Amino acid sequence: MFKKVLVANRGEIALRVIRACKELDVKTVAVYSEADVDSMHVQLADQAICIGPGPSTESYLKIPRIIAAAEIANVDAIHPGYGFLSEKAEFAEICDRCKIKFIGPSSKVISMMGDKNTARATARRLGVPITPGSDGVIETEDEAMEVARAIGLPVMIKASAGGGGRGMRPVLNEATLRSSYQQASMEALKCFGDGSVYMEKLVERPHHIEFQMVADSHGNVIHLGERDCSMQRRNQKIIEECPSPKISDAMRKEMGDASVKLCREIGYENCGTIEYLVDNDGKNFYFMEMNTRIQVEHPITEEVYGCDLIKEQIQIAAGMPLSEHILKSQPRHHSIECRINAEDPFNNFQPSPGKIHHWYAPGGRGVRVDTHVYSGYTVPPYYDSMIAKLIVTAATRDAAIKRMRRALSEFQIEGIKTTIPLQSKILTTSDFQQGNYDITWVENFLRQEGLVKG
Amino acid sequence: MFKKVLVANRGEIALRVIRACKELDVKTVAVYSEADVDSMHVQLADQAICIGPGPSTESYLKIPRIIAAAEIANVDAIHPGYGFLSEKAEFAEICDRCKIKFIGPSSKVISMMGDKNTARATARRLGVPITPGSDGVIETEDEAMEVARAIGLPVMIKASAGGGGRGMRPVLNEATLRSSYQQASMEALKCFGDGSVYMEKLVERPHHIEFQMVADSHGNVIHLGERDCSMQRRNQKIIEECPSPKISDAMRKEMGDASVKLCREIGYENCGTIEYLVDNDGKNFYFMEMNTRIQVEHPITEEVYGCDLIKEQIQIAAGMPLSEHILKSQPRHHSIECRINAEDPFNNFQPSPGKIHHWYAPGGRGVRVDTHVYSGYTVPPYYDSMIAKLIVTAATRDAAIKRMRRALSEFQIEGIKTTIPLQSKILTTSDFQQGNYDITWVENFLRQEGLVKG
Repeated sequence: MFKKVLVANRGEIALRVIRACKELDVKTVAVYSEADVDSMHVQLADQAICIGPGPSTESYLKIPRIIAAAEIANVDAIHPGYGFLSEKAEFAEICDRCKIKFIGPSSKVISMMGDKNTARATARRLGVPITPGSDGVIETEDEAMEVARAIGLPVMIKASAGGGGRGMRPVLNEATLRSSYQQASMEALKCFGDGSVYMEKLVERPHHIEFQMVADSHGNVIHLGERDCSMQRRNQKIIEECPSPKISDAMRKEMGDASVKLCREIGYENCGTIEYLVDNDGKNFYFMEMNTRIQVEHPITEEVYGCDLIKEQIQIAAGMPLSEHILKSQPRHHSIECRINAEDPFNNFQPSPGKIHHWYAPGGRGVRVDTHVYSGYTVPPYYDSMIAKLIVTAATRDAAIKRMRRALSEFQIEGIKTTIPLQSKILTTSDFQQGNYDITWVENFLRQEGLVKG
Repeated sequence: MFKKVLVANRGEIALRVIRACKELDVKTVAVYSEADVDSMHVQLADQAICIGPGPSTESYLKIPRIIAAAEIANVDAIHPGYGFLSEKAEFAEICDRCKIKFIGPSSKVISMMGDKNTARATARRLGVPITPGSDGVIETEDEAMEVARAIGLPVMIKASAGGGGRGMRPVLNEATLRSSYQQASMEALKCFGDGSVYMEKLVERPHHIEFQMVADSHGNVIHLGERDCSMQRRNQKIIEECPSPKISDAMRKEMGDASVKLCREIGYENCGTIEYLVDNDGKNFYFMEMNTRIQVEHPITEEVYGCDLIKEQIQIAAGMPLSEHILKSQPRHHSIECRINAEDPFNNFQPSPGKIHHWYAPGGRGVRVDTHVYSGYTVPPYYDSMIAKLIVTAATRDAAIKRMRRALSEFQIEGIKTTIPLQSKILTTSDFQQGNYDITWVENFLRQEGLVKG
């Protein structure tokens, strides 16, 4: 096992990793920006090193500073968390060269899955269903038109290097196809430094279903079921649940088998997530992409499958096989997560950084809170607005919904706005209670309720 | 289901019951003493009624005031929690007469199990092992001597109406027998208004093992395994765990079967706990007593068996059968609880009431905190010193111990002393790590470490 791990991240996920390390008797090194000096991840690490000013580009994204901190602190390994450098193949490669173990898959696998177009080709080659679309990169407007006519409109134009909804354009009719192609390509070039785009048939009102994969270096590859992340707005997930109310046992088996096969064939190691679109009636699934890191919403899988994914990640990276209990793990109960964001959901989700004067988080049976904040903490303006994850688990989906409503009602946060009022509202809708929602639901709901401004 | 429930208790258990009610869509009424006005159980109830000054005898033990509150608030049922009126048959009877459902067993069963001597006789009649001892109440010194000689010294003299270690005297030799008999009887008379005592053979260095029982009004009687509560000082439990490191599967089955038989025969309904002594080598068990209410340490059973005992209590009282998932429940993982008390463990456990200037509780995977306190709360001097329960659960006992150490190390409590430093110390001992401890262990440890003062 490693002696010392550096956590190249901030906020709740940094604290999450530190907690896992402590339970494995591994020393921890936090890195932090000047804006994060008061974060609980800095307080609870064994050692903490400041790596620069607030903006991420000056600190959490600055590879040389992180490597320097790792060398000064003399760590064996680096955990990248999610976001920031977690899916940068270059970072994993530099770690390798510096003889620091990167806790995640190899840089080769990160690259392969990072290029969405290559990932799609890999899935197709392995017999995992993908949406009909272009064979690879589309080079010209004319080719775009040709492919669109072949697969039928509506279609989606996507950046090969894309992610987070950028470089994506839906095309509903031929009239807008050429301009959308140009816009998507320009946006992709601007955001990712690579203007290549490809085309997929647009699946209407789909569900976002993702499979949690775990693989070690001893040939064990397993999946831990799916998470339903369809409750999202502009590709930002708001509420996630495990299992999905839309996935049958037969579908879970089919998707799980395909996912295991994919991981096995590409030599995947460590935790990862394969994202699928499932069509509105729940009959067909299509490979979307693979995230080669831990996901924000991993706790709901942990609660249902009774495991600790971050500990598994560290153990796998240290060369250990998957723990016996995760290999035998059976799902139990239902788990839901609300991402508590410092945003005003009733004012276009405007970020709401600032000082939290009073903080009281819910507790008791079936309630888990993962957060780096506390009474008196100031939310800095530089980062993702998530300040806490509230995870509840109960014997049935109904009981979990009631528990989440109870837990949300106990939360006391003064000084900033949060998404809690919106999540409370969503939980009372019959659509959510009956599991009737797809990825377009939130936007429609906001419109219907008159909650979209401007 | 009930429309409105009054919680006749305070602190964490009152909040625990309120949370369960909320998840069942049942309205809640808190009662509180003047000293508890700032407790979270008062803030989170739908309605709160002050029932008198701080001392329990003026409020939480005052039956007429609680019944008056229940009638004013027009509730259907009362949950008594633990302690206070929870095992007073008279209170259950008065509730009945007032047509308010008492959430617990019948007053008849409470009486039967409340008299320790009758309970013992009942267990013997049903073939549940009891320690050798007197057939019933011992009337004279001479009879005491006769019984002691028959069963062999050392023996224990106990109050029939006893509990919490009062009215109990160990007798190691004949020279002290007569005086111990008189002292025990006088103490019993003083504490419980009933001087009757009985005698049991003293089991040396035993384990305190208790079985969680659940029974409904439809004939379902189940046990949810055992809790090991041997880590105690002067009958006050400090750390509990589920399952016990000392109980084999065969022993669990034997003790569980005996426990189910006992509950079935006496017509037990609702949650209850049967306490046993298990001899030091783990071979024999002896019925000690039955607690006819929820226990402080019920959460470790909930975590391992994946259930919600307080919700079950309420549902059972409302006439519903046990929920399907509890009937099929299988144990998973290992759970440990530390009772966080406002006491100075290094100064004879002197109570440490006062204002909590700063409170930060641990969180994350496998950590549950049940508490009514928060930053700025003042611990009143009138009550039991427990301010929080920290419960951790993990795949193995070793992992649970590491998780508990991690969680204790995160706790930040400023302004009062707590038992956390002692619990942290105990968790690092090889005795605890190997599960080698009995009910005498804590006292010995405190002496060895030089932590007993005066």
